[in-house]
Amino acid sequence: MASNGVDEIKLVEGPAGYVLEDVPHLSDYILDLPTYPNPLQSNAAYSVVRQYFVDEDDTVQEKIVVHKDSPRGTHFRRAGPRQKVYFKPSDVRACIVTCGGLCPGLNTVIREIVCGLHFMYGVTEVIGVDCGFRGFYSKNTVALTPKTVSDIHKRGGTILGTSRGGHDTSKIVDNIQDREINQVYIIGGDGTQKGASAIYKEIRRRGLNVAVAGIPKTIDNDIPVIDKSFGFDTAVEEAQRAINAAHVEATSVENGIGLVKLMGRYSGFIAMYATLASRDVDCCLIPESPFYLEGKGGLYEFIAKRLRENGHMVIVIAEGAGQDLVAESIDQQDASGNKLLKDVGLWMSLKIKDHFAKQSVMDITLKYIDPTYMIRAIPANASDNVYSTLLAQSAVHGAMAGYTGFVSGLVNGRHTYIPFNRITERQNKVVITDRMWARMLSSTNQPSFMNPS
Amino acid sequence: MASNGVDEIKLVEGPAGYVLEDVPHLSDYILDLPTYPNPLQSNAAYSVVRQYFVDEDDTVQEKIVVHKDSPRGTHFRRAGPRQKVYFKPSDVRACIVTCGGLCPGLNTVIREIVCGLHFMYGVTEVIGVDCGFRGFYSKNTVALTPKTVSDIHKRGGTILGTSRGGHDTSKIVDNIQDREINQVYIIGGDGTQKGASAIYKEIRRRGLNVAVAGIPKTIDNDIPVIDKSFGFDTAVEEAQRAINAAHVEATSVENGIGLVKLMGRYSGFIAMYATLASRDVDCCLIPESPFYLEGKGGLYEFIAKRLRENGHMVIVIAEGAGQDLVAESIDQQDASGNKLLKDVGLWMSLKIKDHFAKQSVMDITLKYIDPTYMIRAIPANASDNVYSTLLAQSAVHGAMAGYTGFVSGLVNGRHTYIPFNRITERQNKVVITDRMWARMLSSTNQPSFMNPS
Amino acid sequence: MASNGVDEIKLVEGPAGYVLEDVPHLSDYILDLPTYPNPLQSNAAYSVVRQYFVDEDDTVQEKIVVHKDSPRGTHFRRAGPRQKVYFKPSDVRACIVTCGGLCPGLNTVIREIVCGLHFMYGVTEVIGVDCGFRGFYSKNTVALTPKTVSDIHKRGGTILGTSRGGHDTSKIVDNIQDREINQVYIIGGDGTQKGASAIYKEIRRRGLNVAVAGIPKTIDNDIPVIDKSFGFDTAVEEAQRAINAAHVEATSVENGIGLVKLMGRYSGFIAMYATLASRDVDCCLIPESPFYLEGKGGLYEFIAKRLRENGHMVIVIAEGAGQDLVAESIDQQDASGNKLLKDVGLWMSLKIKDHFAKQSVMDITLKYIDPTYMIRAIPANASDNVYSTLLAQSAVHGAMAGYTGFVSGLVNGRHTYIPFNRITERQNKVVITDRMWARMLSSTNQPSFMNPS
Amino acid sequence: MASNGVDEIKLVEGPAGYVLEDVPHLSDYILDLPTYPNPLQSNAAYSVVRQYFVDEDDTVQEKIVVHKDSPRGTHFRRAGPRQKVYFKPSDVRACIVTCGGLCPGLNTVIREIVCGLHFMYGVTEVIGVDCGFRGFYSKNTVALTPKTVSDIHKRGGTILGTSRGGHDTSKIVDNIQDREINQVYIIGGDGTQKGASAIYKEIRRRGLNVAVAGIPKTIDNDIPVIDKSFGFDTAVEEAQRAINAAHVEATSVENGIGLVKLMGRYSGFIAMYATLASRDVDCCLIPESPFYLEGKGGLYEFIAKRLRENGHMVIVIAEGAGQDLVAESIDQQDASGNKLLKDVGLWMSLKIKDHFAKQSVMDITLKYIDPTYMIRAIPANASDNVYSTLLAQSAVHGAMAGYTGFVSGLVNGRHTYIPFNRITERQNKVVITDRMWARMLSSTNQPSFMNPS
Repeated sequence: MASNGVDEIKLVEGPAGYVLEDVPHLSDYILDLPTYPNPLQSNAAYSVVRQYFVDEDDTVQEKIVVHKDSPRGTHFRRAGPRQKVYFKPSDVRACIVTCGGLCPGLNTVIREIVCGLHFMYGVTEVIGVDCGFRGFYSKNTVALTPKTVSDIHKRGGTILGTSRGGHDTSKIVDNIQDREINQVYIIGGDGTQKGASAIYKEIRRRGLNVAVAGIPKTIDNDIPVIDKSFGFDTAVEEAQRAINAAHVEATSVENGIGLVKLMGRYSGFIAMYATLASRDVDCCLIPESPFYLEGKGGLYEFIAKRLRENGHMVIVIAEGAGQDLVAESIDQQDASGNKLLKDVGLWMSLKIKDHFAKQSVMDITLKYIDPTYMIRAIPANASDNVYSTLLAQSAVHGAMAGYTGFVSGLVNGRHTYIPFNRITERQNKVVITDRMWARMLSSTNQPSFMNPS
Repeated sequence: MASNGVDEIKLVEGPAGYVLEDVPHLSDYILDLPTYPNPLQSNAAYSVVRQYFVDEDDTVQEKIVVHKDSPRGTHFRRAGPRQKVYFKPSDVRACIVTCGGLCPGLNTVIREIVCGLHFMYGVTEVIGVDCGFRGFYSKNTVALTPKTVSDIHKRGGTILGTSRGGHDTSKIVDNIQDREINQVYIIGGDGTQKGASAIYKEIRRRGLNVAVAGIPKTIDNDIPVIDKSFGFDTAVEEAQRAINAAHVEATSVENGIGLVKLMGRYSGFIAMYATLASRDVDCCLIPESPFYLEGKGGLYEFIAKRLRENGHMVIVIAEGAGQDLVAESIDQQDASGNKLLKDVGLWMSLKIKDHFAKQSVMDITLKYIDPTYMIRAIPANASDNVYSTLLAQSAVHGAMAGYTGFVSGLVNGRHTYIPFNRITERQNKVVITDRMWARMLSSTNQPSFMNPS
Repeated sequence: MASNGVDEIKLVEGPAGYVLEDVPHLSDYILDLPTYPNPLQSNAAYSVVRQYFVDEDDTVQEKIVVHKDSPRGTHFRRAGPRQKVYFKPSDVRACIVTCGGLCPGLNTVIREIVCGLHFMYGVTEVIGVDCGFRGFYSKNTVALTPKTVSDIHKRGGTILGTSRGGHDTSKIVDNIQDREINQVYIIGGDGTQKGASAIYKEIRRRGLNVAVAGIPKTIDNDIPVIDKSFGFDTAVEEAQRAINAAHVEATSVENGIGLVKLMGRYSGFIAMYATLASRDVDCCLIPESPFYLEGKGGLYEFIAKRLRENGHMVIVIAEGAGQDLVAESIDQQDASGNKLLKDVGLWMSLKIKDHFAKQSVMDITLKYIDPTYMIRAIPANASDNVYSTLLAQSAVHGAMAGYTGFVSGLVNGRHTYIPFNRITERQNKVVITDRMWARMLSSTNQPSFMNPS
Repeated sequence: MASNGVDEIKLVEGPAGYVLEDVPHLSDYILDLPTYPNPLQSNAAYSVVRQYFVDEDDTVQEKIVVHKDSPRGTHFRRAGPRQKVYFKPSDVRACIVTCGGLCPGLNTVIREIVCGLHFMYGVTEVIGVDCGFRGFYSKNTVALTPKTVSDIHKRGGTILGTSRGGHDTSKIVDNIQDREINQVYIIGGDGTQKGASAIYKEIRRRGLNVAVAGIPKTIDNDIPVIDKSFGFDTAVEEAQRAINAAHVEATSVENGIGLVKLMGRYSGFIAMYATLASRDVDCCLIPESPFYLEGKGGLYEFIAKRLRENGHMVIVIAEGAGQDLVAESIDQQDASGNKLLKDVGLWMSLKIKDHFAKQSVMDITLKYIDPTYMIRAIPANASDNVYSTLLAQSAVHGAMAGYTGFVSGLVNGRHTYIPFNRITERQNKVVITDRMWARMLSSTNQPSFMNPS
């Protein structure tokens, strides 16, 4: 117990190949913690609901496309309220922090952590950390009550503010101790959850009775294991506006090209789904699928072909696509304008214009649209509002029940608690040898860009 | 085998309690059917996708919240393209029919059956049946091509027209034979899929080489087994407008009540999810949860209480809620206006107004909003567009592969083929002893209406 | 001067038939009022604007379609800031009240009166009267500051609350005196402005140094003289949703009828403009143009004709249309359902269904949509936001300059001050012998319903 | 008659300073043209409308803010149908061309010219010129019928296609003669109407019986004389989305700046109105109002001040603002990225970032949004749909009545015919010494940028 079990992974095995990848619990490293009856037992709203409390043995199967004789494989602990809780509501002092880029639904998650703690568990002390991880030690906090968060789900952004970049885990945990916080809710992406994991480990190392719960946030949908991230639906929906506009611009001139850049630094999910939903896109370029510009089978050839056939064309490009091409093409002299070319959308719009200007074969008109911030900043749609609500409630139930070092995530349509390592060890990516990508290719009829000379 | 196996249910069992509820196949009752290689094998778009074809043994598990030693339970056949198909594309003559009420996504499903058959399988003969089942024998058909359906997913409604009510199965099958149709795609709800099942059985009885595929459609989300029905997300989203308006009206006057009727004849899913997504609703009434008006613990008392506390109130009522109260309260004399009172929204708005007019305690102002047709008639949102696309493609893959007597449905996030009987034998309903309803109650803090005197 | 000039109309005549219908001024009945330099003179924002102050002689011509030798006709006083003001900003105590039905833009008007007084004139005491005229004596007031009204223009409804119905002018003026209010801003329709006029007259009768300014509000656009009322554009825009839905419903079934009721108790402007904007409407019925149902040239005949031609039909009916028909047709026995039939939309949907049910010629499917509250309750669109802003600022400039007994109104695109009597003495109505109505008829090709047998 | 009167301006004078700036008429240069009764006389829809035809003497006054003894000033001919027309409907062969950038409402104008000619006048031959002026001689035309244009007003862009740039007036008029076109409808901006004027003059020079009518199109609202251009309202409305997003981004981080570029090459109307409508903007920069970056009273200073006060800031910049600064700052070496810096939005986002990066005082986060094409490409809103309809109908009435060399324009709320020269001789600009700009300054409290050191 030198390490206090900090790095250990909790696995439970069962018959027919059953494995449970469990999440840590405060009682794993603090002995003799008292428990309390769940206040929901006496909540009028829940009195009619007999099956409300989650059976401790409930687990959710990860792999559900199976053969008759498949091993049962990995499972996760089912989320939800437990019969007993490990915090006395009046003792709880919770904090919420949001990190990284904006995503529709952030405010809903904040709202529902506050309201869930308040209305379900009677917890009244919830504070918001201002402007991301660094805010723990560099900013004042704000008190969060059901009244102050009542309408925030109708607004985009995050009322807490957010930030990117480095932070000091040790100072954060110091602050958590100093402020006597015992529940920490951390909303953020990949990097943020790695930070959350480090915070959890430091807390465990210090033996503190503090639960750490993550709610994964990524508009790019690049978190693995979970079905999809909150805000993703809203983003795909809002991306339709940009694609529609690109389509109108392209079809209103001769040889019109509409180029739309969508979010997706490492994963092309938004680009792919937005393309599938729209049906007006002729070419979708994502980080996972390399492409090239010149020569046979290249993008320029395809553009010329499609323009000759249809007279217009819509291209969707994820922000992380073609980064190799961008890197090798940018003039290394530090002309100030060149900074802009690191943006693949601006870079590609210049490249295509230059190419067709040099070729005197065809006059094109290209219109470039970058709707990124108009997408990120809108409020969640109804579907994401409900989804964010349930993620937040799950996180609250988990922390109250003494679980820690987990994220709240939807797996095969069921809410679960997933250990940090499972969602930070790799990124979710579009598998271009899989059917969804084939559907996309089939809808655009674009080339595979597979055989550069 | 007098019955030609028409009514038999195909079950396959495996170890650890594994059961596959399989769907019929044309080869079950027609011997020596020839097969052909799947044209997708030579489709450029799919050439890069190694795992494109579905393994014949792939099945999708129905129950995924399990215990370590749970039996594996029911599975459904996984949807998707097979290595070989049972129809030569040039021989296929497919038809599509839409039945019942409007639902966002109908046109997307139509579009994708046409485009899927055309672009994936090279099928060029697809006809649309006009105005529902009766159209088979009472109307002309229309030819459907990728060009004619190209933009229809951006429009609400169904370009084929729809109808409700009786039809003659035998005449439909006669017509299918007369027109030499060999694939029948039927889009509709509960009743329609019962009709589809009857058509499938009659076709099997006659030993015809005709595949029958259903795509379940229900804006109410009342089809069991599947995760949710297409159009549901869009409906919940659009319902927010009505709830927002009700909230504004209610808060702009003294003792203002906003009453919104939403769809849901037998199931209150739209009302429940719209309430959860909005957070502005004070009371949500659904068919599954009885309530009463008068006396202690009744609705009138709750209204008066909430108005005294907040000065305003928003009530959402599903169209099928309180039908017992409506039935007993309508004056049986056939005054023409009384017909209107069968609409629970109009009925309740009158009842509440009358109650508070008689009680001289409180002047209320009630505004009633019925957004039903404004919700049903919009185009699918991006999420439903993608979902409808995949449902349609699955149906096409299934029919081409010789499956019949099935619906295409999403189970735990995976596309499957489900036998008709499983989705028509009961309705999906809100389980009011389950957690989702408890979440709803918790968000509105409404009474349970459980103990009428 | 027994009457203190209360009922006198201020007319100024000039050459070539020029007439100015002027508005009252506090100095008309209070002698030796001190004046102060307009604080805008030292406002940084205005320092660059040389022509900012309105020339006292500026007037706006009412009739601008003229002949070479037309008399110049009626003019109104131009709105805007004056070089000198009749209130010392620190002495001003203003109040705002909203009356009648909701209308997009109400909150913008409230916001801009508060912000205009504050930022342009340095007035800090502004109070809101709760829930309409009666609130003056039956409710508490709320303090309004730039901070409290900062975001209200993004919300529908009125933050002050509103009410309809009777009030006591004398008690209102008592309260104005008791609270030492010296500027009264009254936002409301026809009836409200009659009330405002009475309040102004009572104030004048008492010789009080209190300016009364009206901002006309009517979603129906039934206020005469002014170009259009704020919120009207937004209403016409939002009505498109309902018409689109009706069109989708109608075209998705055989003999489908979509019936949409729009606002317009005495004036059919919303119905007419919404019809013109949409182009999907087959028949538009408004209060100004009588129609009949039965027989040759009647509505039933037209419906049958249009259904035979096109298979579907969209009807838009203003809430005040056909009131004579409704009145004579309702069963006078007080069956409770009959109350609902006073709503012309419900009444007509029943009548049409009954008619075609009795006639066994044609099965119809009618869908009725009443979007009234979903239209009224939305926030103002950008155009109405700007318009409402300027109306509010004009009212503030007018009151500060000592004008009273006026409304702020747009005449031929210019902001003016109009005496109460001109906007309350009649209602603005669609002139069915004018070109706009002819354009509408031409777009629907509906009959004129001019010759009932 | 050397010049055939081509360049003459038609002025009619009257008493009290009345002047009519009239438009040319075919009979000005072709003698003895036959006339025909207006077919509207026997149109059922118009039979009820007694005052339908415009009195030949009706004129619309340009200046309506007047003094008691002002001269009556300039008037324009009132638009509308005349009792007699100069074309026999069966002889009319009309063409429509759209030029320049996209603007909401283009398709509505096209639709209503086609439908107006068809339904009001019985004209059946209308052809569309493909892709702008050059299309007259380099492209095929398309036949336009009420059926083909029936739904186009619900789509953005122009179904005819458009183009910019040079064209050959003589070849266009040759083509008009060759195709026997006798009515030419030209939709486009400033430059396009200059081209239209040249076409009219060439036609007149050749003595052809061909009417030329312009419909001014400019999303920037930079056409003088007319009240506003079609599509402007829609653009201001849609710009709100971008400003809202910028506001959310700015308020969600520490020292967040949201920068939005809006259309307006020479005129800042969209920026100014969008700022007024939104109220979330801290600084609005337009071409008409110079500004500077560095030093006291400069933009950087204002940004730092506002960030210190509020923690966030929203800047709206019109595309034509600060062109002098851009020109002098771009590195003249032709680094390819520098092309991008000609875009003032990209340029300014770099400049601000660089400035604050160099100053180590304050870390800022700037998000740049360019919604240009997402605004241009949307369909017209209801208000612009009605407006575009009436502009198109006016143009049709004018051409049928034999007027030529005119544009159809709204003046003080009345439809008029305006001679080309009046709308091409100068551009409409925001007058920064006028009240509207003062209102804008007052709403943002930005500095006047008037005294650079």
